[in-house]
Amino acid sequence: MIIVLKSGVGDSEIDEVCRRITEMGYSPHVIRGEFKTVVAAVGEERGRPDLRLLEALETVESVMPVQQPFKLASKEVRAEPTEVRINGVVVGGAVVVVMAGPCSVESESQMCEVAEAVKVSGARILRGGAYKPRTSPYAFQGLKEQGLQHLAEARKRTGLPVVTEVLETESVELVAEYADMLQIGARNIQNFTLLRRVGETGKPVLLKRGMATTIQEFLLSAEYILSAGNPNVILCERGIRTFETTTRFTLDLNAVPVLKKLSHLPVVVDPSHGTGHWDLVAPMAKGAVACGADGLIIEVHPRPELALSDGPQSLKPSKFAQLMRELAPVAEAVGRSL
Amino acid sequence: MIIVLKSGVGDSEIDEVCRRITEMGYSPHVIRGEFKTVVAAVGEERGRPDLRLLEALETVESVMPVQQPFKLASKEVRAEPTEVRINGVVVGGAVVVVMAGPCSVESESQMCEVAEAVKVSGARILRGGAYKPRTSPYAFQGLKEQGLQHLAEARKRTGLPVVTEVLETESVELVAEYADMLQIGARNIQNFTLLRRVGETGKPVLLKRGMATTIQEFLLSAEYILSAGNPNVILCERGIRTFETTTRFTLDLNAVPVLKKLSHLPVVVDPSHGTGHWDLVAPMAKGAVACGADGLIIEVHPRPELALSDGPQSLKPSKFAQLMRELAPVAEAVGRSL
Amino acid sequence: MIIVLKSGVGDSEIDEVCRRITEMGYSPHVIRGEFKTVVAAVGEERGRPDLRLLEALETVESVMPVQQPFKLASKEVRAEPTEVRINGVVVGGAVVVVMAGPCSVESESQMCEVAEAVKVSGARILRGGAYKPRTSPYAFQGLKEQGLQHLAEARKRTGLPVVTEVLETESVELVAEYADMLQIGARNIQNFTLLRRVGETGKPVLLKRGMATTIQEFLLSAEYILSAGNPNVILCERGIRTFETTTRFTLDLNAVPVLKKLSHLPVVVDPSHGTGHWDLVAPMAKGAVACGADGLIIEVHPRPELALSDGPQSLKPSKFAQLMRELAPVAEAVGRSL
Amino acid sequence: MIIVLKSGVGDSEIDEVCRRITEMGYSPHVIRGEFKTVVAAVGEERGRPDLRLLEALETVESVMPVQQPFKLASKEVRAEPTEVRINGVVVGGAVVVVMAGPCSVESESQMCEVAEAVKVSGARILRGGAYKPRTSPYAFQGLKEQGLQHLAEARKRTGLPVVTEVLETESVELVAEYADMLQIGARNIQNFTLLRRVGETGKPVLLKRGMATTIQEFLLSAEYILSAGNPNVILCERGIRTFETTTRFTLDLNAVPVLKKLSHLPVVVDPSHGTGHWDLVAPMAKGAVACGADGLIIEVHPRPELALSDGPQSLKPSKFAQLMRELAPVAEAVGRSL
Repeated sequence: MIIVLKSGVGDSEIDEVCRRITEMGYSPHVIRGEFKTVVAAVGEERGRPDLRLLEALETVESVMPVQQPFKLASKEVRAEPTEVRINGVVVGGAVVVVMAGPCSVESESQMCEVAEAVKVSGARILRGGAYKPRTSPYAFQGLKEQGLQHLAEARKRTGLPVVTEVLETESVELVAEYADMLQIGARNIQNFTLLRRVGETGKPVLLKRGMATTIQEFLLSAEYILSAGNPNVILCERGIRTFETTTRFTLDLNAVPVLKKLSHLPVVVDPSHGTGHWDLVAPMAKGAVACGADGLIIEVHPRPELALSDGPQSLKPSKFAQLMRELAPVAEAVGRSL
Repeated sequence: MIIVLKSGVGDSEIDEVCRRITEMGYSPHVIRGEFKTVVAAVGEERGRPDLRLLEALETVESVMPVQQPFKLASKEVRAEPTEVRINGVVVGGAVVVVMAGPCSVESESQMCEVAEAVKVSGARILRGGAYKPRTSPYAFQGLKEQGLQHLAEARKRTGLPVVTEVLETESVELVAEYADMLQIGARNIQNFTLLRRVGETGKPVLLKRGMATTIQEFLLSAEYILSAGNPNVILCERGIRTFETTTRFTLDLNAVPVLKKLSHLPVVVDPSHGTGHWDLVAPMAKGAVACGADGLIIEVHPRPELALSDGPQSLKPSKFAQLMRELAPVAEAVGRSL
Repeated sequence: MIIVLKSGVGDSEIDEVCRRITEMGYSPHVIRGEFKTVVAAVGEERGRPDLRLLEALETVESVMPVQQPFKLASKEVRAEPTEVRINGVVVGGAVVVVMAGPCSVESESQMCEVAEAVKVSGARILRGGAYKPRTSPYAFQGLKEQGLQHLAEARKRTGLPVVTEVLETESVELVAEYADMLQIGARNIQNFTLLRRVGETGKPVLLKRGMATTIQEFLLSAEYILSAGNPNVILCERGIRTFETTTRFTLDLNAVPVLKKLSHLPVVVDPSHGTGHWDLVAPMAKGAVACGADGLIIEVHPRPELALSDGPQSLKPSKFAQLMRELAPVAEAVGRSL
Repeated sequence: MIIVLKSGVGDSEIDEVCRRITEMGYSPHVIRGEFKTVVAAVGEERGRPDLRLLEALETVESVMPVQQPFKLASKEVRAEPTEVRINGVVVGGAVVVVMAGPCSVESESQMCEVAEAVKVSGARILRGGAYKPRTSPYAFQGLKEQGLQHLAEARKRTGLPVVTEVLETESVELVAEYADMLQIGARNIQNFTLLRRVGETGKPVLLKRGMATTIQEFLLSAEYILSAGNPNVILCERGIRTFETTTRFTLDLNAVPVLKKLSHLPVVVDPSHGTGHWDLVAPMAKGAVACGADGLIIEVHPRPELALSDGPQSLKPSKFAQLMRELAPVAEAVGRSL
C-alpha cells in the first residue's frame, strides 16, 4: 500500500506514520520527492481490512492499496477456471449454460408448462422465484414453501436442476432442501449474514451483482461465501443503475471480461433484469455470449401479460425457442456450445 | 395511470387493452391523437403493485403512473409532519436533533468516553454499532451483544437514548431490548423481511437510504415498516453512488426538501458516511441543517486513527464540539434550535 | 402529452390549464379521477420544444410527453434503415464495417504503417485524430493541418477512406476538405453550433454519444445534423460514466438495440474508449457485433507504450489482426460479414 | 507516480520500466514486496500529461498518480483565496454574491423588469442568456446580439454588471464587448478551444461544471483558462447526472468544500439548474451558502409559465425577494453577508 503524505509534513510526522505502518505489520519505505513524500508499506494486503485507516491521520493525504482486497476469489490464488456443478450440469466449462423459467412460481401447472417448454428449447437449469423481494409491500411476495414444492415437481418431470432465490437467513435451510442452487438476489449482495449462511450450506450459489456494486465489492461478497468454506460460487451480472432510463438498468457486459481477468469464478448474465424489456433480451443475450459469459439466466413466461411479477421483461416460450436457435451459432463462433 | 399504445394499433387491440384495464379495476378512457392513442386508466394507484404489467402486451409502448406508489408515507394521507419520540427526544419538531458517537462500539470505556463528550457538546442521541456490515469478510464485524451492553452502560451514565444498527432478522429481538431506536443500514434498505420485522417491533426506526435507492424506492421501503403498523420512521440521507470519487459517496442534500415535499416523515442527514472524510463533515452538516434537515447523525471517535471502522470520516470530540458551536447559529437562521 | 394536476385543484384552475394547452396548439381532454385530475393534450409533440413549460404553473404536478421529441431521427418518419456511404464504404448494410487506426496522428510514417496494417487485417475505414480534445492543457493537442495531410497520404497509399474528429466550428471547412467522414467527439455532443455546422457540410458524420448523454438527448443531437439537411449520420456508442472504475467508462451495449428500436440511423461501437484497456477491446468488440452493431471503431498503434494519447487502450497490429480473425465468425453468427 | 507491476514480472522487465521512467524525466525507485513489485517515480507530475501511458506496457498493472494533474488552479501554487472582480463586484470575499435574472433574454422590457426587481431584492449581478444551448434543434435558441443589447440596457438602468453565456469561439469577441463576465455552460466544460479563447480575453469567466465532470476534470478545465493567462475564473456547481429522477440533476453541494480544499478559486452554486424545480431552489440556496459557497446564480422570471426556456425552475420576483430575506441570516450564521 502507498501512503501519500500531505505537503510540508516534517520528519517526526513521517516517523510517526512509519511507526504505525510497522505496528500494522508492514515494512515502511520512505520515498521523498521535491513536492510529495510517499511511504510504501510492503506486506500482504489481501484479506486485510484496515488499509484506509491511516487516512484518519491529519498528516496523510490518501492511502492507495496495491493489491486487491479479496483473496480466495482472486486468480492469483487459483489460476485455473472454477467449474461449478449443479446436479450434473457444469457451469464454467465449454458449454454455455442457459437457465430459464418464470420470475415468480405462480402454480404447479405454470411451472411445469414452462419447465417443459424451456427444456425442449435447450435450457439446462430451471429458474423460478418462491420468495420474492418486491419494492412495494403491496406486491405479490411469492408462494414460499408451496412455490418450492412446485419447483420440485417441475424438476421431477423434466430432470432440470432448479435455482431459486433465498431471501433471509431463516429460510436458508428450507430453500436448500428443495433447490439445487441457491440464488442471492441483487438487493442482498451486501447482506453479509445471509452470504455467510449460504456459504455454510456448501450448495452452489448464484450471486447476483447489486445495482450499485463495484466489481471489487462484488468479489468481496463472493469472498464471504468462499471463506465460509463453499467454493461453488457463480457470479451473475444483472444490470447496474445509471442515469439512462430507456432500459430498466444498464446491463454492464464489460463486467464479464473484467471479472474473468480478476477471478477464477464462472460468470453468467441476466439480460431480462438487466434491460427490463423483453425485446432487448435476445440481442443482449447474444452480446453476453460473444463477450465470454459462461451462461445466461432468462425469464420465460407463457402469458407475460398476466405474470405476477416482471411480465414486461419475460419472453414467451416461442420467442425463447427462437433465441436459443439464434444463440447456438454465436456460442460456436466463440468456441463454445449451448 | 396512462397507457401509451404503439403507433398503428387497431380498434380491436385498443378494446383488448381496455378490457384488461377494467379487469384490473380501473376505468379506461381512450384518447385518440393523430399520431398516438393513449388510454387513461382512472382509479386508485397507491398501494397497487401491478401497474407496469401492461407493458408486457406487444401493443403497449409504455405505462406511466399518475400517482406515487406509496400511501402511508405520503403527504396526501397525512398532511402534518410526523414527530418521532425516542425515549423523550423528539425528531421532526423545532429542535434539530444531533445523534453522535463512534462507528463501532469497541469497548465500554470508549463508548462512555465518547458518550460523555458528545453529550457535553449538545448531542441528544448516542450512536454506536454493535453489529457491523463490512464489505470485507476479514474486517471487524462488531462486538455484537457485548457491544449492546456497552451502549446500555453509556446510556445509563449519560441519559442519552441509543440508536444502533440491526443487521438481520434473527437479532431484531435482542437489539430491540437494548436500543431506543433501531437503525436499518444502507445495505439493508431493500431487505424486506428485516423491514417488516422492525415494523412489527413498534420501536422507532432510523431508515438509511441505500447508495442506489431512488426517492420513490426509499419511501416504499418506509412503507414496509409503516404498513407493519409502526408509524415511527425517520428517513436518513447518507450519500448515493455517483461517478465522483473525491467523496466516498455523493451526499444528496436535495433529498431533504424532496422528501419533505412528498412525505410527512422526519428527515435526518449523515454527513460522515455521505462524504467519507472528516474535513467535509462540518460544511455538509451546516448545509444539511440550512436546507431543512430535522437532525444529523455524526461519527465521533476519540482516536480516529485507531478506530476499528470508518476512522477517516470520524471527528475527534474537540472538532465535534466546535461543529456544534458553529451549527447553532445556522439552525437559528432557519428558525430552529439545536 | 399528459399534464398531471396537483391534488385539490379546482375547476377554474383546470380551465386555466386547458386554455394554456389550447394556446400552445393542443386539444385538451380532462380526465377526473377520485384522487387526481389529468389533462391529455392531443397534438404533434415531435419537434415541439415547449412541453415541460406547463410545470411552471403552481397547479401542475408534472408533464409527461407521449411522443419522442426527435422527428427526423425517428423510425416513425423513416421505417427502413439508413445506409451511410463513406467514399464507397456502406455503413448500415450487411457488412459490419471496422474503422481502425491510432488515437492521434503522430507522423506520416506512423499513419502509413498503421493504415497498411489495418487494411491487411480487413479494416475498411482509417481513423486518426489531427485535432485532439485533451482533458489537460499540458497534453499533446494534435498535429492539426499537418495531421490531416498525413491522413490524406495514408488514404492515398491504401485507398481507405478517412474519418477524423473536428473540434471547433472554425476548422470544419478545413477538416472537411481532407476527411471522408467528420467525427464529432463525445465532449462535443451538445456543442450545437458545431452540430449545425457539420450538418451544413453534407459530409457523413460519426456522432459519438457523450459520457452523460441519454439516448433521447443523443438522438436530439443527431436531429441537429439531420435538420440542417444532412441525412448521413452514424451514431457511435463509446461508453458512459457510471460509478464503476475498473473500466475507464462503462461501454453501454444496450444502446445498440435501443437505438435500433427508436431510429433508422446506423449504430457503431467504440470498445477502445468505452473500456480504456486494450485487453477488454476484443471481448467487447465481439459483444458489440453480436448484439447488432453496424460497425466498430478501434484504436491501433504500432507501439502503444510510446503513443502520444490513449496508449493503454490501443491494440498492436498483431492483436488487431487476431481480433479480426475472431470477429468474422461472430459476424456470420448474426447473419452478417466483416 | 506509483507504477504497480503485474505479479511474476522479472528483473529485465523491471529494468525496462525503470528505463522508460527515466526517459520520461522521473527517478525510479523499485520496491519489491513478496507479492507485488512497485516502482515509485519521483518528480513533478503537475502539468505533465503522460502519466497513464505506462499502462500500455504489458508488464504494468496500473499507474497511480501521487500529485493532482492541475497546477495553476491548485492551492499548492497559490495558498490565499482568489477574489474575482466583475465591474466592481467582488466574488470570493466576505460577501456572498447573488447573481439573478431570467434563463433567456426575451425582450428589453422583460430584462429591465427583472433587473430592477432582483436589484431591489439584493442581487449584485444580472444574468440572462442571449445565446442558448438547447437540447432540441426546435427550441428557442436565443436572441443573440439583440439579447446582448437588452442586457446592456438593463445594466445601464440598474448598474448591475452582466454575466451571459458564450457558446462558440466565433462569438467570443462580440459577447465580450457587452458582458462583464463570460459564462461557459455545462455542455462546453470540455470545449477546450472555447476555454482557451475566453482565457485569452482576460475577462472574468463563470465556469460551470458539466453534468458528468469530475472535480479533477473541472479543475483541469479551469487550468485551460488560467494557463491562457486569465486568473479570473469562478467555478460553478450546477448539478451532476445520477440515477435519481425527482430532481432534474443532482446538485452536488459536496463540490463546494471539496473545491475549496483543492483550489484557491471562488465557488458559486446554481440551485435552479441543479434541481430543475422552483420549489427546491430556496432550500438548496440556503444549503449552498451554509456549506461555504461564495455566491449563487438563480433564475428569476416575471411569468415563468410563459418563459421561453426553463420556466419550471424559475422563481417569480416575489419568491426571489422572500428567498433573499431568508438567506441573509444563513450567510450571517457562517460569518458572511449578502
